Amino acid sequence: MADQQARTDGDKRATEIPAIRWEEPPEGPVLVLLDQTRLPAEEVELVCTDASALVEAIGSLAVRGAPLLGIAGAYGVALAAARGFDVAEAAQDLEGARPTAVNLSVGVRRAQAAYQAALAQSGGPTEAATAALAAARALHREDAEASARMAAHGLALLDELVPGGVFRILTHCNSGSLVSGGEGTAFAVALKAHREGRLRRLWVDETRPLLQGARLTAYEAARTGMAYTLLTDNAAGSLLAAGEVDAVLIGADRIAADGSVANKVGSYPLAVLARYHHVPFIVVAPVTTVDPDTPDGASIEVEQRPGFEVTEVAAPQVPVTGAGGGIPVAPLGTQAYNPAFDVTPPELVTAIVTEEGVLSPVTAEGLAELCARPRQVTSS
Amino acid sequence: MADQQARTDGDKRATEIPAIRWEEPPEGPVLVLLDQTRLPAEEVELVCTDASALVEAIGSLAVRGAPLLGIAGAYGVALAAARGFDVAEAAQDLEGARPTAVNLSVGVRRAQAAYQAALAQSGGPTEAATAALAAARALHREDAEASARMAAHGLALLDELVPGGVFRILTHCNSGSLVSGGEGTAFAVALKAHREGRLRRLWVDETRPLLQGARLTAYEAARTGMAYTLLTDNAAGSLLAAGEVDAVLIGADRIAADGSVANKVGSYPLAVLARYHHVPFIVVAPVTTVDPDTPDGASIEVEQRPGFEVTEVAAPQVPVTGAGGGIPVAPLGTQAYNPAFDVTPPELVTAIVTEEGVLSPVTAEGLAELCARPRQVTSS
Repeated sequence: MADQQARTDGDKRATEIPAIRWEEPPEGPVLVLLDQTRLPAEEVELVCTDASALVEAIGSLAVRGAPLLGIAGAYGVALAAARGFDVAEAAQDLEGARPTAVNLSVGVRRAQAAYQAALAQSGGPTEAATAALAAARALHREDAEASARMAAHGLALLDELVPGGVFRILTHCNSGSLVSGGEGTAFAVALKAHREGRLRRLWVDETRPLLQGARLTAYEAARTGMAYTLLTDNAAGSLLAAGEVDAVLIGADRIAADGSVANKVGSYPLAVLARYHHVPFIVVAPVTTVDPDTPDGASIEVEQRPGFEVTEVAAPQVPVTGAGGGIPVAPLGTQAYNPAFDVTPPELVTAIVTEEGVLSPVTAEGLAELCARPRQVTSS
Repeated sequence: MADQQARTDGDKRATEIPAIRWEEPPEGPVLVLLDQTRLPAEEVELVCTDASALVEAIGSLAVRGAPLLGIAGAYGVALAAARGFDVAEAAQDLEGARPTAVNLSVGVRRAQAAYQAALAQSGGPTEAATAALAAARALHREDAEASARMAAHGLALLDELVPGGVFRILTHCNSGSLVSGGEGTAFAVALKAHREGRLRRLWVDETRPLLQGARLTAYEAARTGMAYTLLTDNAAGSLLAAGEVDAVLIGADRIAADGSVANKVGSYPLAVLARYHHVPFIVVAPVTTVDPDTPDGASIEVEQRPGFEVTEVAAPQVPVTGAGGGIPVAPLGTQAYNPAFDVTPPELVTAIVTEEGVLSPVTAEGLAELCARPRQVTSS
């Protein structure tokens, strides 16, 4: 990657490394990403000097998670503008970097709209670049504020649904500060419970194939001092059957207008299991995750990822051995079915928690009403 | 392992390497195992010269799978007898090598009973050792015959349950010739369908944490020329939701008297998913898997395995890096919940297929009747 430079900050504390930040060194502005493919073994930052490096980082999942992708996309547009690249082309490439997360498009378009509006008003590319960056920063800040509000709404919902006031929460994939401008979505709820001494345990699904739970959620849980236990995705059924889970909380990559939720593959089986065991299944996501242009679950495009993610196990700390750069675990020539996401129908979702409030039961009408609420205005 | 010798048969064809065999070289009898922890990367045989080496091989999962464990246990007793070790002590160690698989105990006790009966009759340890070996060989042969009968019964059941005559079968873990004296249990049904041109596809769950699906079932499927596709365990829900699965077929490690089925962790979530999608969930296992002394699912002891199987990924072909000999994927100090098995209640099991016939619906009375049927007598 010509335009990404790796930077290892060995002397920084883990808690000080944000998932994304904009920097303006003398050589020109850059977008600095914590390379999530290297966690938890190494904390390495990627320095992107143009949008194509960011597109590559998005494709390789160095930066990931629906809300963070929106922020990254907006900064990517700002970066292209600040460095004098073709902003429309950069925006198009960024939007196409991953098909399922609607937030990516939303973030890209917001920065692009600010850029174009400034151009139309002043005609100057410098002012337009400044406007794009301001839009990205506003999105970043709003996302942090949205995290805090989702955490509060989510914890209040747990209090309603689960008696006893302390919670054993099962989560899937990663939904903390690594996916967000703030403290995340589902993870932020668990973190708030933890800070209030009300988290009995966070059960962390490892989340095959890319092990975001084992690598990233466990890293975030360890960093914040939570009581957490890792499990294979297969073991969630045993936990639920044993009555060891009070609620399942996940994030979302896209929510259709009917309330269908696309999230990391393995979410839907958890929803079915949760229903079978009468355990609440709660989706936590900012309203930008709702895509009114996607009418229902069947309309959600589910990204199919390369088979080598399944036939090999990624291990950045060992030398490359397989075609995909990981350690082969299946016979050579094995084909794999590898959808990145699955879709949970609204009838299996107990509630959707957003920064604007909680929707339960999940209906198309309720979702439309929630998304239409006047947003809290953020001064910029 | 002092008494295990590794042997790599690079020039043998994969199809010629049985999972277990008894050999009598001039130095004395040995039990030769295909080391299943090294597949599919390497075909390495372990040569056990005493029962304690076999106990170690069972513990490390070099030899595994309920029916094969029974055969291995019986040969282990025969090996102790033939080499003049304390047979009662060897039998006790072998029985305790893994707690969940009832077949292991059944095999051990059968060879031990033959040994003791011969001792009681003739008084000679040589004759008693010969009797133990004959018992092990009879069990081995009976298991091969049972595989063939389970395959026939299973395919007939699929014809009853699934219209169209061709099948897309989803399976979990490994249940082929690597777990059996013959062609296995659930896998044998798929193999028979394949040989008759009636297998449309075998969907292979990778089966975390030890990846028996990716490593072993994919290896067996590739070896036999099946159309097969690997998936993460998480993706089974998407396949079922898309209507891509006609039946779920699994083996069993123990079946309680009420019909509760203990099998590899991840089986129970599949049973819940199969029920939700109205897809048959079929358990294929020899009647020795039924344990009349275990009244119900709650009475089944579920083996808890070391956390490093989850926090690390085993990769025999790369140097040891983690405490458990694998590649660490979670932060240091992460605790893991790692049950080896889960328990599926009888109401979620569409049918149990045994060599004696098919039980559907699954009830305690039906199971007792099935197990009481006169066994087909095998001449020895």
